[in-house]
Amino acid sequence: MDTVSQYDDETAVEQIDDGRWRGRVSSAWNIGDNPNGGYLLSIAARALEDAVAHPDPLSVTTHYLRPGIAEADCEIDVELIRTGRTLTTVRAGLSQSGRTRLEVLAAFSDLSEPVGVDAEITLPPPAMPDPDDCVQRSAENQGVGLPILDRLDIRLDPLCAVPGGSDSAVIRGMVRFVDGRAPDVRSLLQFTDCFPPSPFSLLGAIGWVPTLELTVHVRRRPAPGWITAELRTDDLQNGRMVESGALWDSRGELVAQCRQIGLVMRRE
Amino acid sequence: MDTVSQYDDETAVEQIDDGRWRGRVSSAWNIGDNPNGGYLLSIAARALEDAVAHPDPLSVTTHYLRPGIAEADCEIDVELIRTGRTLTTVRAGLSQSGRTRLEVLAAFSDLSEPVGVDAEITLPPPAMPDPDDCVQRSAENQGVGLPILDRLDIRLDPLCAVPGGSDSAVIRGMVRFVDGRAPDVRSLLQFTDCFPPSPFSLLGAIGWVPTLELTVHVRRRPAPGWITAELRTDDLQNGRMVESGALWDSRGELVAQCRQIGLVMRRE
Repeated sequence: MDTVSQYDDETAVEQIDDGRWRGRVSSAWNIGDNPNGGYLLSIAARALEDAVAHPDPLSVTTHYLRPGIAEADCEIDVELIRTGRTLTTVRAGLSQSGRTRLEVLAAFSDLSEPVGVDAEITLPPPAMPDPDDCVQRSAENQGVGLPILDRLDIRLDPLCAVPGGSDSAVIRGMVRFVDGRAPDVRSLLQFTDCFPPSPFSLLGAIGWVPTLELTVHVRRRPAPGWITAELRTDDLQNGRMVESGALWDSRGELVAQCRQIGLVMRRE
Repeated sequence: MDTVSQYDDETAVEQIDDGRWRGRVSSAWNIGDNPNGGYLLSIAARALEDAVAHPDPLSVTTHYLRPGIAEADCEIDVELIRTGRTLTTVRAGLSQSGRTRLEVLAAFSDLSEPVGVDAEITLPPPAMPDPDDCVQRSAENQGVGLPILDRLDIRLDPLCAVPGGSDSAVIRGMVRFVDGRAPDVRSLLQFTDCFPPSPFSLLGAIGWVPTLELTVHVRRRPAPGWITAELRTDDLQNGRMVESGALWDSRGELVAQCRQIGLVMRRE
C-alpha cells in the first residue's frame, strides 16, 4: 500500500554530508519544460526542515537564479545563520550541475506559540463560488503544457479565469493535491506558486512571467481541505511586476501571505 | 564648505579587503538606545553599491538578527551570488563585535532599462494634507527618545497620528532629510523604516515592534521633494504582524513597496 503522497515522494531529500542534502527533481511538476518554482522551493524546504528545530516557515525569501532541470539530481546546502529560542534564521542554495538555481533566506518559528500581544487583525477570505462551479485550470489558454495539473487540482473563479477578460490583474482560485494529501505549512510554499500569473487576467496570456524573488509568510497551520488564494498585481512598470497574494484554509483562516517581484515578458 | 549630507556621511564605508567593508554606526539615527533598522540597512547598502555594477536595489530582504550598537564600528561582508546582464544577486552580513546583526539578500538592476511588456499598472498615492497641516512626529507619544528626528523630518496625517485614535492599523505620512539632501533609491530603504509602527494607530503605543524580516522593492528613482508613505497591518496573530506599505515621490509616482514581518510586544 502506497501511503506516501506524490508531493512528499517527489520532494524527498537525504542528507549526504554536514549541511548538505541531495534530492531528485521530477518532471511531474513542470510548467512547460521547466520545473515549477514552488516545487523546487518545496525540495529545498525539505532540507531546511531537516536542519532546523522550529517547525514553521515564518518567512521564506527565494531568489530564482536559473531554471531548474527536470529528471535530474539536485543538491541543497544549508547554513544556520542564527539559532534562537523562538526563531531560527537559515540560508540554503539549491544547485544542479554545479550551478545554483535557487537561493533561499528564511526564518523558522513555532506558530502555535504566542510571542506578543493577543490582539488579532486578519484578512477575510474573498467570496468564491463552490469548487464545482469554478473553472478547472487547463493548459489550453496558456500556450505551454502543464504537467503540474496531474499533481494539483486547481480551480479558478470564473470571473478571472479568461485571460484578458478581467478589468484588473487579479486571480482567485482554489487548490488541493490530486492524491488527497492534506495541506501543511510546507505545501503553502507550493500553493503560492501554482496559479496563472495575475497579469494574464487583465492583459491576456501575453507570454511568460518569470519570478525573480518570492517571499512567503506562513501565518497559520492549515486545516484539511481546499486552499483558497487571491493574487493581485497592482504595480507593473518597465516589464517588472510586484504581485501580492494571500491564502486561506477551508475554515476561512488566513494561512499565508506572499509577494513576488517578477518579469512580464511577451512571447516571441 | 560641508557638501556631504548627514545621511551620506554617517553611512560611509571603506573597503578593507576582498568582499569586506568597514563602517561606523552613529547614534544620531537611534530609536531609544538602538540604531534604527533602516539606518543599519543603509550602511550595508553602501557596501552593496560598491560591490555591484547595477545601480538600483530592486529587491532587498533583510533579517534583523540582533540589535546594532551605536557609536561603534561595523563590518560588512558581501558575496556576489549571480552576476547577469540585467540583474545582480548578492548577499551581505553586517556585523559588530564579531556577531552578525543584519543578514541581507538582494537583487540589483537598472530601473531605467525596460525588460518586458510596456503595459503599466500602478498604485495611486493616498490623499494627504499639506506637510504644514500634518503632525510632526515626536517622541512624546512613544515612550522612548527618538534622536533620529534630528535627521529625518517626519510628518503624520492627523487622521492616524494619535496612537489608538484610528479604527484601522494604518499610518500615513511624509518624510524628507532635515539637511535638505534629495531622496534617491538608497534612501528609500531608510524611509520605509522611519514611521511609527502602523499597529499603534489602532492599538495605542502599546510597546515595541521589532522587525524580524523586511523586504523592500524599489520601483522608480524618486524625484526631489517629500516622500509620501502609507503602511498598513492587516494581519496580526499570536504577536506576529505582517505590515505592507508603499512610498510615492513628490510627482505622485510609486517609488517603492515594502513588507515586513515583525513582533508586536507589550512594554513590560
